[in-house]
Amino acid sequence: MKARVYVMPKAGVLDPQGKAIGNALEGLGFGGVRDVRAGKVIELDLLETDPARAKQAAEDMARKLLANTVIESFRVEII
Amino acid sequence: MKARVYVMPKAGVLDPQGKAIGNALEGLGFGGVRDVRAGKVIELDLLETDPARAKQAAEDMARKLLANTVIESFRVEII
Repeated sequence: MKARVYVMPKAGVLDPQGKAIGNALEGLGFGGVRDVRAGKVIELDLLETDPARAKQAAEDMARKLLANTVIESFRVEII
Repeated sequence: MKARVYVMPKAGVLDPQGKAIGNALEGLGFGGVRDVRAGKVIELDLLETDPARAKQAAEDMARKLLANTVIESFRVEII
């Protein structure tokens, strides 16, 4: 069972990587970019075959390691 | 219009960040993790209001800056 964990900086948290990408896009001539936020996606290949338990396991992993829940929010998707 | 660009290492490309996350998860006692791949997600807030043109613009940005298409694949989603 595969799970995808999306980790994004929370609204209001400064995102220097996103800002840098935004500036670089502008420098390359891409206009019309209002805002850029940069996050991570982690694809987990789990032995677990039950979707509910796989989602629970991925959420535990996100809380303990993959996301810093003080400044980042995460979302788990079973695929 | 918002667009999300997902960038993942291509299959077969070495992913040291994913490997490190896999080792860390094992060290934390999470068993049953067969494989981990780490990628990026970039959320773009575009002035463009037409979904097809916004998707086209995001794909152009991905090809020119956000993804290294030699070793990474990308996918654009309009949200």
